[in-house]
Amino acid sequence: MKIVEILLVEAPHQPGNMAKVLTIVGDMGITVEGLNAVRRLYRDTIWEITIEYDDSLNMQLLVDKINELPETKIVGKSDRVFNRHKGGKIKTQSSIEINSLEVLRDVYTPGVARVCEAIKKSPEKIKEYTNIQNTVAIVTDGTAILGLGDIGPEAGLPVMEGKAAILSELVGVSGVPILLKEKDPLRIIETVEAISPSFGAILLEDIKAPECFKIEEELISRISKPVFHDDQHGTAIVVLAALLTATKRVGVCIKDKVFGQIGLGAAGMGICNLLLDYGVKEVLGADINEDAKKKLRGQGGTPVSLDELMQQADIVVATTGVKGLIKPEMVREGQIIMALTNPDPEIEPEIALEQGAIFATDGKTVNNMLAFPGLFRGALDAGVSEITHQMKIAVAETLSALAKEDALVPSALNKEAHQAVSEAVYQCAVDVVGKKH
Amino acid sequence: MKIVEILLVEAPHQPGNMAKVLTIVGDMGITVEGLNAVRRLYRDTIWEITIEYDDSLNMQLLVDKINELPETKIVGKSDRVFNRHKGGKIKTQSSIEINSLEVLRDVYTPGVARVCEAIKKSPEKIKEYTNIQNTVAIVTDGTAILGLGDIGPEAGLPVMEGKAAILSELVGVSGVPILLKEKDPLRIIETVEAISPSFGAILLEDIKAPECFKIEEELISRISKPVFHDDQHGTAIVVLAALLTATKRVGVCIKDKVFGQIGLGAAGMGICNLLLDYGVKEVLGADINEDAKKKLRGQGGTPVSLDELMQQADIVVATTGVKGLIKPEMVREGQIIMALTNPDPEIEPEIALEQGAIFATDGKTVNNMLAFPGLFRGALDAGVSEITHQMKIAVAETLSALAKEDALVPSALNKEAHQAVSEAVYQCAVDVVGKKH
Repeated sequence: MKIVEILLVEAPHQPGNMAKVLTIVGDMGITVEGLNAVRRLYRDTIWEITIEYDDSLNMQLLVDKINELPETKIVGKSDRVFNRHKGGKIKTQSSIEINSLEVLRDVYTPGVARVCEAIKKSPEKIKEYTNIQNTVAIVTDGTAILGLGDIGPEAGLPVMEGKAAILSELVGVSGVPILLKEKDPLRIIETVEAISPSFGAILLEDIKAPECFKIEEELISRISKPVFHDDQHGTAIVVLAALLTATKRVGVCIKDKVFGQIGLGAAGMGICNLLLDYGVKEVLGADINEDAKKKLRGQGGTPVSLDELMQQADIVVATTGVKGLIKPEMVREGQIIMALTNPDPEIEPEIALEQGAIFATDGKTVNNMLAFPGLFRGALDAGVSEITHQMKIAVAETLSALAKEDALVPSALNKEAHQAVSEAVYQCAVDVVGKKH
Repeated sequence: MKIVEILLVEAPHQPGNMAKVLTIVGDMGITVEGLNAVRRLYRDTIWEITIEYDDSLNMQLLVDKINELPETKIVGKSDRVFNRHKGGKIKTQSSIEINSLEVLRDVYTPGVARVCEAIKKSPEKIKEYTNIQNTVAIVTDGTAILGLGDIGPEAGLPVMEGKAAILSELVGVSGVPILLKEKDPLRIIETVEAISPSFGAILLEDIKAPECFKIEEELISRISKPVFHDDQHGTAIVVLAALLTATKRVGVCIKDKVFGQIGLGAAGMGICNLLLDYGVKEVLGADINEDAKKKLRGQGGTPVSLDELMQQADIVVATTGVKGLIKPEMVREGQIIMALTNPDPEIEPEIALEQGAIFATDGKTVNNMLAFPGLFRGALDAGVSEITHQMKIAVAETLSALAKEDALVPSALNKEAHQAVSEAVYQCAVDVVGKKH
């Protein structure tokens, strides 16, 4: 794993001093990200060197080597990633300055009682006079946090706060992390249902398969608000967007093709379902888990072996977590291959291309943060009761249309793209569901 | 109920025009809070008149009378209270600007994984690298919202947002409204326990008695984080603070006195418990509910009738919701009486004083918002696992010590008071519990 650290180095004002330090750093195979003089002392300068290195590095060796330089020493260290997490990444902010008794009496007691009574009388007014239609619960049981697995909900909180920070920064939605002690699907469903009046929508996050399928399905049927499991559908939407761009680029029509999904976990099953909804000719799926294959068949796909899949599919997407699973000799002439496992894909794109694939990419381009912020913004604004397949497809088409030059999808930080996604979802809600806010 | 409304009146530029409008307003017994010229047109001026009136007023009559004035008309109306609630009173804000891929990679993936792993390895690091130790869930089932009763959790949301806005503005704590569909105490307990990993502390709010007692007690035993029911303890703390000031002012020692509580709901029971903990000589309680009286006996108080209470108690506090319950002839020479029901107390302070009380006040001075913000700030900063009686008493003593001149407690918007409360709680945690962050 890559670590970004900031070293504070004190060295005399002499030409070439920092060159020596950077030489040591470079010789150890460490990447330098930045160098700044942060303080000039009488005789010395304090330098801040930002480096990125693999966690397998012997850091003490670097420290020793630098300290061996004449009159040069490391006087401090800090880890930029941890620094940026200090105190957490989100907070609840009052939208109104409470600076007088008049304001206090209006927004709290006695004034607030009139607003409460208005909502009691006309429940839909909750959307106008509270922040609820701008709020998404980010719910996890901590069983499948990033690539880390079942590390528990508390250890997953930095991810949930990250999602909330992204929602706030990109589309102005209020995300609220909800960490669940429960792991039993039924109790998770009951708990989320019990607190559902608090939020405008529910984002399920990092819940492992197969539990995630039942939890999402049941919550969608119990709660008349958008419920969305990002690991399934967020990933699927961005994969579809990338496939739309890739197929357009090589001049084929995705609907005429046989699609093969390797790995039927949360993401893989989500991709299969979205591709089926999109209308590809046939969806094949390979997994070592028999239940997963049965589930795929129930949803209209065809379970096959890995070899069969590689032989029959025109488009192959892999989300297995297994590095190098796709052997070079399995690749067929003219295949489109997306091997999405990070950081080491099922097959390196260059190798797939050498073997005759007409298009190949890895997971670096597929960031599911492209989908969920605009999707929730649009769904909340439109006041829909669920996220439909049409909305998911509209998001994928919007993202693909906005991809520039060689990229398959827009940059994850492109606010115009998030705005376009939210407008596409809103329009879809108005057109298809006929349910306008 | 009082309504604050802003009228937009268009009238020609002529001396005396607004005087006529204000005369009409005054003749109808309406209070004017402000008058501003908001736009000068070619011939006319648009005035904004802020008025406060009782909801029993025939507003149409006022509109008609103003419109009858020559060339003067009402061109708009808006309700200041509702305006101030538009879009809600809180939002989740990112603490970090996500404006580059570098920041995104640090705070989200891949950087965040290292923080997750660090928390997994050392669970207490969650306090350092997330916002959890700054977060309070504001939980309600909607059964006892303000004085409005069981109007449901959704209609109560503006109150919960108000509490969150207060926490944010006064002490920088992040409040998160949690509205529960459940009304069964056991299911409420299970739900709050299930989501408790998400927060640093739990503020129970507007849950009706007697369910609130069991819910609070059980959650305190199940969750090793501060759990606090504001209607019981917040009110009790501020009442004790006011009593400490009042007794000091009239030169008596509260511990030597017989204390009587009329009304044993959530607030009344909380007051009895805190006075018992504080060490008053004897606590009497009157209520029409037999279970409430039994509960009081179990906690060390003595249930009596209203008449007995008024005959025996030196200090009387009433929280019954019943206007005029204390008849003038019941008041004894030398009693201290706090009749707290709003807006109409159990006995008007002037009448109680006329009857020989040495001190009397009503509920206008007792604002429970004086206690909870600083209490949570201090408890979270100290990292305590529960709110102790010592902390509650420390808050009351701090508030009483800061009361100025004729006031019994400081102003609810006095930030120094909230700061002092939080420091007192922190100190108490260090001294008494010996549990320092």
